[in-house]
Amino acid sequence: MPTTTFFTPVSDQIRSVEARMRAMSNGHHPDLKKALDHLLSSGGKRIRPAVALLTGGMLGADPERLITLAAAIEMLHTATLVHDDLIDGSLLRRGNPTLNAQWTPAATVLTGDFIFARAAKLAAETDSVEVMRLFAETLSTIVNGEITQMFAGRNSVHREEYFKRIYAKTASMFELATTAAAVLSPLGDEVINAVRKYGYATGMAFQIIDDVLDFTGEQDMVGKPVASDLRQGLITLPTIFYYETHPDDPDLKLVLNGIYFDETRLARLTAAILGSDAIKKAVAEAGKLANQAMDALQDLPRTAEQQALEELANYIVNRHR
Amino acid sequence: MPTTTFFTPVSDQIRSVEARMRAMSNGHHPDLKKALDHLLSSGGKRIRPAVALLTGGMLGADPERLITLAAAIEMLHTATLVHDDLIDGSLLRRGNPTLNAQWTPAATVLTGDFIFARAAKLAAETDSVEVMRLFAETLSTIVNGEITQMFAGRNSVHREEYFKRIYAKTASMFELATTAAAVLSPLGDEVINAVRKYGYATGMAFQIIDDVLDFTGEQDMVGKPVASDLRQGLITLPTIFYYETHPDDPDLKLVLNGIYFDETRLARLTAAILGSDAIKKAVAEAGKLANQAMDALQDLPRTAEQQALEELANYIVNRHR
Repeated sequence: MPTTTFFTPVSDQIRSVEARMRAMSNGHHPDLKKALDHLLSSGGKRIRPAVALLTGGMLGADPERLITLAAAIEMLHTATLVHDDLIDGSLLRRGNPTLNAQWTPAATVLTGDFIFARAAKLAAETDSVEVMRLFAETLSTIVNGEITQMFAGRNSVHREEYFKRIYAKTASMFELATTAAAVLSPLGDEVINAVRKYGYATGMAFQIIDDVLDFTGEQDMVGKPVASDLRQGLITLPTIFYYETHPDDPDLKLVLNGIYFDETRLARLTAAILGSDAIKKAVAEAGKLANQAMDALQDLPRTAEQQALEELANYIVNRHR
Repeated sequence: MPTTTFFTPVSDQIRSVEARMRAMSNGHHPDLKKALDHLLSSGGKRIRPAVALLTGGMLGADPERLITLAAAIEMLHTATLVHDDLIDGSLLRRGNPTLNAQWTPAATVLTGDFIFARAAKLAAETDSVEVMRLFAETLSTIVNGEITQMFAGRNSVHREEYFKRIYAKTASMFELATTAAAVLSPLGDEVINAVRKYGYATGMAFQIIDDVLDFTGEQDMVGKPVASDLRQGLITLPTIFYYETHPDDPDLKLVLNGIYFDETRLARLTAAILGSDAIKKAVAEAGKLANQAMDALQDLPRTAEQQALEELANYIVNRHR
């Protein structure tokens, strides 16, 4: 459990969400159970469930349905990670070996599908057609984003395409967490635009900071090699800002042309990006989004959860994973 | 379009279902659009949508919602086939190259996920929580069945395990088609058990006959080599019946032990199975199920659709693909 303060109003509920997720792996083949337990417990900051629980709590939604929703969201997130790791051929996630590193592609595909199916079942248990519709819509957005990226290659240096990509990859799920929680609340329609804005802005900020930390983080902290995105030819906001002021950097040109390049060049380009103002600009962009998120909260009920959502937006920009 | 008579009451609706499915591929990357068009048009007998449309028509469900449901079911079916072909490493389906034969695993996984997402969206458009719940339940059943098979290996000669496997693989989707259609109808609960029985029995019969045709069909008709299941070590009902009377066949023992065996042995075992009463017994088993399906129809409204459902159960057992 993270110790950051915004979890305080929902820490008991987060434990219920985790129990709900773990219950899913019971009664299955021991190898599958082991893999599911590993995937569901090794994992993550539980930020998406916290966002759903805090939003719903602020708006007075039923706690039981919120726990179901939060579990469904974290499972949908986990399922997309499992297929992602297969697609990227990643062998590590959060410093742990991926399923992909240990299992055949067939087992990985099916385990991802299994978690999708369970996420869909949990979503159906919220008993809301609108929540189901939002789930299906979000899954479409995420998969569409990955497909676009796969076909387009990874070398676009256009901010607009980057923002579209991280919306599909990350912010769409934060939006789902806030809007679905609002749908389950008695306030409903009046507040949905405000919480959508909050979800969008925190999700975008979250991914930008993740991409910054890929450059600035310690390998031990991040659980993967520094500049792992660049190593894979993945262009993120720091690289885009660097490109805008250094369009002729010969190392960057090689990356953009998808040409394999060696550790010496990678280290040189990473140092050049870190030495420029690109990181500062990217953090400022995330800060601007966090402010937008906090603005969106202003007309919402002034509860402990609202306060926690404000802290969460702050934390996202100032965290070091 | 198939020319069998049971399609007559729903032939216009089947065209609407196909249009609904094709509409999904618009506005996407040309390569994805091409793949989707190929997957969605190359395809199949449209038996599952016909079952949903006929059941709903018989029970007086709204035609527009039925078309949405039928399209959702056929898409869910298509998505599972895409992942299946990846998992099995199949290069041909219905005589056409699979996506897997032409694309990378990453593209195949994502295209399957994309079709899943669209199936979920269509299911949500039926505007029924119960339909969504049935969808999620069926997806769980299908994936669970595949995972069980993957872990168990493919060499069980127990009828009971075979029936469980084909329920998960095929009959669960037929059950979904009939029960979800009933949920959308004004009759609802009273008829749901009857149509579930019909869906179960036709689905089981359908898969048994598919497995029989793998032995008896011509390669041109079936679109894959004769005895392709056996070649992959997959034990189906004809082999199980043959085993029950010939437990000591040395060729069969090799298959059951998962040992690679050559074309000579494969041809010899196939001929032995075809020369035994195993095929006749398997067809009789399918016939028994078709009769159960027809029995289940007896207390339902005597409409043209009910008549067509009876013909469909008959056709399934007597077809040659």
